[in-house]
Amino acid sequence: MATIATDQAVVTLVNVFTVSPERQQELADLLVEATESVMNRLPGYVSANIHRSLDGSKVVNYAQWRRVEDFEAMLRDPTAQQHMAAATRLAISVEPHLYQVVFTDHAGEPARP
Amino acid sequence: MATIATDQAVVTLVNVFTVSPERQQELADLLVEATESVMNRLPGYVSANIHRSLDGSKVVNYAQWRRVEDFEAMLRDPTAQQHMAAATRLAISVEPHLYQVVFTDHAGEPARP
Repeated sequence: MATIATDQAVVTLVNVFTVSPERQQELADLLVEATESVMNRLPGYVSANIHRSLDGSKVVNYAQWRRVEDFEAMLRDPTAQQHMAAATRLAISVEPHLYQVVFTDHAGEPARP
Repeated sequence: MATIATDQAVVTLVNVFTVSPERQQELADLLVEATESVMNRLPGYVSANIHRSLDGSKVVNYAQWRRVEDFEAMLRDPTAQQHMAAATRLAISVEPHLYQVVFTDHAGEPARP
């Protein structure tokens, strides 16, 4: 379980994969395997959360890293690069961006504390 | 604070707005205002979480609704439609998709319980 909050010391990767529906499950499985075998052993890894779109056309990895530098070090890791290349080959396109959380609101909570 | 987990009874909207960097803050503010004044009063609303990309080019709303039907009812709400149209005018493109969470992993937790 991951949490989304404005006061966490994390940087968030939202990586949106566009995929043909017949390959969506394979891509999701590959991202799970990459998380378990490589990503979650790297310094600064916080969480990975794999999402499948209901329409079959997307897979999203909502991932958290401690610092931008940790994410950039992952990009340079040879084993991580192999897994990312395999995911890119399965996808039609890949759009990774780093984010900061600027606002959260939850049912039953006041919108601003 | 929102939580991401595979065992929650929610459907997840990941809405990716592409925006020119000089309008990113204005778009984020508009989505916050829409959440506080309209969305969080609608049936089935669970959470909204606004993210700004570090490169200035994206705003993501990671939102949770109780059921697909609640999300679809929101799309038909006239006041919600006004806010969505205003956000669309500020953006270069908007890509909303509904997702289910299929896997989560967090540092220090076993990957599969």
